[in-house]
Amino acid sequence: MNSPLKNDLYIRALLRQPTERTPIWVMRQAGRYLPEYRQIRTEAGSFMNLCTNPELACEVTMQPLRRFPLDAAILFSDILTIPDAMGLGLYFAEGEGPKFNKVINSIADIKQLKRPDPSVSLAYVMDAVALIHKTLNGDVPLIGFSGSPWTLATYMVEGGSSKTFSKIKNMIYSEPHTAHLLLDKLADAVIDYLNAQIESGAQAVQIFDTWGGVLAPDMFKEFSLHYLEKIVAGLHRSYNGSTIPVVLFCKACNSHLEAVADTGCDGLGVDWTITLSEARARVGDRVALQGNLDPVIMLTNPETIETQVKATLASFGKGHGHVFNLGHGITPEVDPLHMTILTEGVRQHSPAWHID
Amino acid sequence: MNSPLKNDLYIRALLRQPTERTPIWVMRQAGRYLPEYRQIRTEAGSFMNLCTNPELACEVTMQPLRRFPLDAAILFSDILTIPDAMGLGLYFAEGEGPKFNKVINSIADIKQLKRPDPSVSLAYVMDAVALIHKTLNGDVPLIGFSGSPWTLATYMVEGGSSKTFSKIKNMIYSEPHTAHLLLDKLADAVIDYLNAQIESGAQAVQIFDTWGGVLAPDMFKEFSLHYLEKIVAGLHRSYNGSTIPVVLFCKACNSHLEAVADTGCDGLGVDWTITLSEARARVGDRVALQGNLDPVIMLTNPETIETQVKATLASFGKGHGHVFNLGHGITPEVDPLHMTILTEGVRQHSPAWHID
Repeated sequence: MNSPLKNDLYIRALLRQPTERTPIWVMRQAGRYLPEYRQIRTEAGSFMNLCTNPELACEVTMQPLRRFPLDAAILFSDILTIPDAMGLGLYFAEGEGPKFNKVINSIADIKQLKRPDPSVSLAYVMDAVALIHKTLNGDVPLIGFSGSPWTLATYMVEGGSSKTFSKIKNMIYSEPHTAHLLLDKLADAVIDYLNAQIESGAQAVQIFDTWGGVLAPDMFKEFSLHYLEKIVAGLHRSYNGSTIPVVLFCKACNSHLEAVADTGCDGLGVDWTITLSEARARVGDRVALQGNLDPVIMLTNPETIETQVKATLASFGKGHGHVFNLGHGITPEVDPLHMTILTEGVRQHSPAWHID
Repeated sequence: MNSPLKNDLYIRALLRQPTERTPIWVMRQAGRYLPEYRQIRTEAGSFMNLCTNPELACEVTMQPLRRFPLDAAILFSDILTIPDAMGLGLYFAEGEGPKFNKVINSIADIKQLKRPDPSVSLAYVMDAVALIHKTLNGDVPLIGFSGSPWTLATYMVEGGSSKTFSKIKNMIYSEPHTAHLLLDKLADAVIDYLNAQIESGAQAVQIFDTWGGVLAPDMFKEFSLHYLEKIVAGLHRSYNGSTIPVVLFCKACNSHLEAVADTGCDGLGVDWTITLSEARARVGDRVALQGNLDPVIMLTNPETIETQVKATLASFGKGHGHVFNLGHGITPEVDPLHMTILTEGVRQHSPAWHID
């Protein structure tokens, strides 16, 4: 079923194998900065309509690849599909963040949560993955993804976005067993979900721990990192003869780079608040690094973008194991021309760093 | 004019001198979790009315000291008084963050900004400092404070709070000279402002760099840290025969602890995303450390608070140079009883760590 890859730079970079240049993809590369995305988004009526319709999800996934020389596609979906499949009822209020109809308040609520069968309650995601895989036709790899258990739990207990995370943090400090019950269920669900994505055609997977960085170090290790380890150990690491790289992106977790690298993942997403040279010195050759241009640089001008692309490549330095990306998602106000500058800049300036 | 201090634990801890126990104060200790604060706040009509009326500012500063065994008072004011004094027109829209009537858009706007004379346009702050100093009568030291140049600049250029800081970041990447002109003016203003607070009776000063942590490392050093260094070098370090400690609190700046310690400050505020033991190992004896309980712990229960107080004291370990605090401001939902648990807990459990 797997199409042989015509461009496997992204996969090889994550496996720290030699590449002739640095591959690039961009978080939220299918998104609101593209007029063709905004048009489909308007026609679809809601963000969830886009996610749950495999044809539309495939179309918006492909849009940036038609414009820019990107080295990977990423499934168009949301990080909160699992709690939705568990019955919490995900919706997006216009101008606000994600919300749930049902909130997790007690151990009884957690006990009632069912482990979703991805082929049933998340079939729309698997259909999208299969359709995108087929449409890509091996041009570049398809990245599947999920939210981390901790990050999913924050939304499920808070009922949506939060500034203080007071409910979920209260739970981990006051009722750690309750939190562990929830997180362990979520880890199982994430394993099932990502393995199903791999079986449907995802050629790499990324886990977003968006909110691990709000925790004290020992709490991060107990309530987030532990479950990332469980997931990494439970994923298909090869499928149909292909190695499936696993990337962990833990926002604001610079203090924990070494520990996250020790989970056994292949790649580490890093944001712009640490230099790639420092991150590389700390994690050594254990993992590849993905990142880390400040997304705001995409709002400046072509000259500044090119200068910063060169600085980012130089910060990683000579050798392999770097996947170029922003340190966070591209923002809606970016001029698509600047994506051309970025992607062409990486293509032009990265080969010099790959000469042995 | 300076009253001799009956309790100088906070000052001595910041100067890494021996103390018999760990002093404690709490960021936002004068605040909405206290019913007597909410009453005065309602009567005053607006937050700015509280700040600009020395009698009211003094009253709310004193409120937490009447309830809890705190080792320092902190001036009740706002970090944005300087841009207000520069003519930008600070106001607080209900339920939103701070806003300015006038926003800095260009180098012409910056050139027009006048260096405020604290004894004129910030006289209300100096009157509050003098009145609080007198009212405290030497019971505990009074901490003065200011926002950092970078943090003030973010609000002045964005026009208020921001999630992405796209305008000010665009400025530092595209027009670094313009940003430096603004930041240098602000550094001079902060020096004048804090020195005037010291002359009016502040016995220590703290600078809040709330938004330095959103910058890439080289940008933090160029656009925030450089001006913190300038300020530390420009402050009265002793006044009327008393040493005036300087504390820098840079939120989300764990990567830069060593560099911030090297500014020559006396104390470093740290948040809860790093352990005090790691922070201490990294900065050594150069500076004292202030922090770092996760404020959310104050929402749990007495037992958890006491456990976490003990863990925080143990993390700093034996010896002097620790000022207990939360890692960020106390939140409005906290039960005042929990402040008693916290302050009494530090009093009870800290002496054991100070026995040589």
